[in-house]
Amino acid sequence: MTHTTVAAYAAAAPKAPLEKTTVPRRPLGEHDILIDIKFAGICHSDIHQVDGDWGEGIFPMVPGHEIAGVVAEVGPGVTRYAVGDRVGVGCFVDSCRECENCRAGLQQYCTGGGMTATYNGTGRDGEPTYGGYSTHLVVDEGYALRIPDAIPLDAAAPLLCAGVTLYSPLRHWGAGPGKKVAVVGFGGLGHLGVKIAHAMGAEVTVLSQSLGKREDGLRFGADDYRATADPATFTDLAGTFDLIVNTVSADLDLNAYLDLLRVNGTLVQVGLPENPSPVGAFALVGGRRSLAGSMIGGIPETQEMLDFCAEHGIGAEIEVISADRINEAYARVVASDVRYRFVIDTATI
Amino acid sequence: MTHTTVAAYAAAAPKAPLEKTTVPRRPLGEHDILIDIKFAGICHSDIHQVDGDWGEGIFPMVPGHEIAGVVAEVGPGVTRYAVGDRVGVGCFVDSCRECENCRAGLQQYCTGGGMTATYNGTGRDGEPTYGGYSTHLVVDEGYALRIPDAIPLDAAAPLLCAGVTLYSPLRHWGAGPGKKVAVVGFGGLGHLGVKIAHAMGAEVTVLSQSLGKREDGLRFGADDYRATADPATFTDLAGTFDLIVNTVSADLDLNAYLDLLRVNGTLVQVGLPENPSPVGAFALVGGRRSLAGSMIGGIPETQEMLDFCAEHGIGAEIEVISADRINEAYARVVASDVRYRFVIDTATI
Repeated sequence: MTHTTVAAYAAAAPKAPLEKTTVPRRPLGEHDILIDIKFAGICHSDIHQVDGDWGEGIFPMVPGHEIAGVVAEVGPGVTRYAVGDRVGVGCFVDSCRECENCRAGLQQYCTGGGMTATYNGTGRDGEPTYGGYSTHLVVDEGYALRIPDAIPLDAAAPLLCAGVTLYSPLRHWGAGPGKKVAVVGFGGLGHLGVKIAHAMGAEVTVLSQSLGKREDGLRFGADDYRATADPATFTDLAGTFDLIVNTVSADLDLNAYLDLLRVNGTLVQVGLPENPSPVGAFALVGGRRSLAGSMIGGIPETQEMLDFCAEHGIGAEIEVISADRINEAYARVVASDVRYRFVIDTATI
Repeated sequence: MTHTTVAAYAAAAPKAPLEKTTVPRRPLGEHDILIDIKFAGICHSDIHQVDGDWGEGIFPMVPGHEIAGVVAEVGPGVTRYAVGDRVGVGCFVDSCRECENCRAGLQQYCTGGGMTATYNGTGRDGEPTYGGYSTHLVVDEGYALRIPDAIPLDAAAPLLCAGVTLYSPLRHWGAGPGKKVAVVGFGGLGHLGVKIAHAMGAEVTVLSQSLGKREDGLRFGADDYRATADPATFTDLAGTFDLIVNTVSADLDLNAYLDLLRVNGTLVQVGLPENPSPVGAFALVGGRRSLAGSMIGGIPETQEMLDFCAEHGIGAEIEVISADRINEAYARVVASDVRYRFVIDTATI
């Protein structure tokens, strides 16, 4: 069996523009499925990795870990999927499967060598992985997700990373009826946080730099929408929230946000600011507060999230683009000029 | 009814040595008890407050919030205590009693004006509060604790602050069988953390600067005792602990300790370093870890802690001193030269 060559958009080197190329996909193994990719979301982390912000990358790099498509072929041992099934792939395509976290369905925290990233990673076979800005992907069926019919594939793609990145901490820290939840930042991640937290029954406040997207926020389910540029926000809302999910990767003064928590409240980071944040002890100690972090979700929880979104009519708000506009889209993401997620129509590759 | 004048040791001004003086105690109210103080522990925070490290203090200042004694008189409405009962008082003597936290027994986090500190505070009557370096104290019965007969009064005194400061986070974050707990720092707080975590059934590791007190650590119940001055400690123990309680108030590199946590682990600060600590997002996000804080405990939990300590034969390791040695003791506490808590015999005042 030989590798298949498929079309893709790749950055040839760090910070290089993405250009059309081809990459190999492995032959279908016993438990593999071949996915005919339909849509791939553009995550801000794609840009960070192309730019080398998080360390040396593997080039050429085909980004994309918000992948939605249809099963085109199945390996002989595949039991979960059949040709024609609607499926998705998120941030990882493998993990050790044996460590405590893998066995608990927390593959994202695999301690047996770490999860295999969907792109910019090295597979268990030693080959580089290539992501979703491509026409096809081969993946073990255990690392694919079923996309319910109720969610259009284009609106589903961003759920595979952005959606579960918000769903997981909201679920883990108990967002629900009677809980006051704030979402910091109202972009690709934040707008899904609002929809999901609202659907979970929590009272939701958006904390955004300005009130520019307030109408959208309220329409997506926020009960309140406040500007963080206004110092009154921090005095008005002191001691208010049970849970704050911070989606902003820029350096914020976390102490100001910790002060917005009630006793026993938690501020969860889901972004990765480049610099360490100075954290004072008083805000934590004085109210048994926590500063925590959360990274995407495991396979079972990602499936749970997709089923939850289907049940509650949740999809990402998207702008579908053709592949030749990827570089333009990157510039707009960096400028925060997107409502709320770019999704590449991979038929245009 | 007039105030009573009682003997005490006080600092007349910031950083002044403690000297013998007298302070007023209010007449017994309906629900008040008069405590004949027997022992008062010296907490490092006493020194911080005398020195003005945490802001302007109220002088003259009579420190002491680790108080053990015997009920000498009761107000007409007192129902919980009788003359002769062994009682203790910790870090606070009142709170609003009406806020959500007070109603939940979390008086230490009172949001209705805050808890009334046992000393260096202002009572609900507008009068300054004076602490336990004194012969007598008047306190509302709702803010006193019952000291079980199994605990000697001198060894009980430090439990009222140091004991509950460790007990509360160990209980809140689930220290128990199957859990790996580390205690950072092995002084007045840390040695009680080891005893309590061990009694809760957890596997306990001490992380101390050196191995100087290792024998004590193992004797008090630690399963392992490691020097933080040895870099190998941080590589050997990476990803090990479910819970780390940091009792050190000096500035530590918290990121190094966060890396010692397993997935879902929590690092709890109970001390108050003066400077904010730089915290990187990767350690938190990469393992759904938390950095939290905890402050003493509420009245119900403090009673629970005392009962637990009685059941498990736990008391503080102490060096009993006469009142004229308080200033010398302060110098030794600052030099970490105490095993493990100074307790003032108040009969010597």
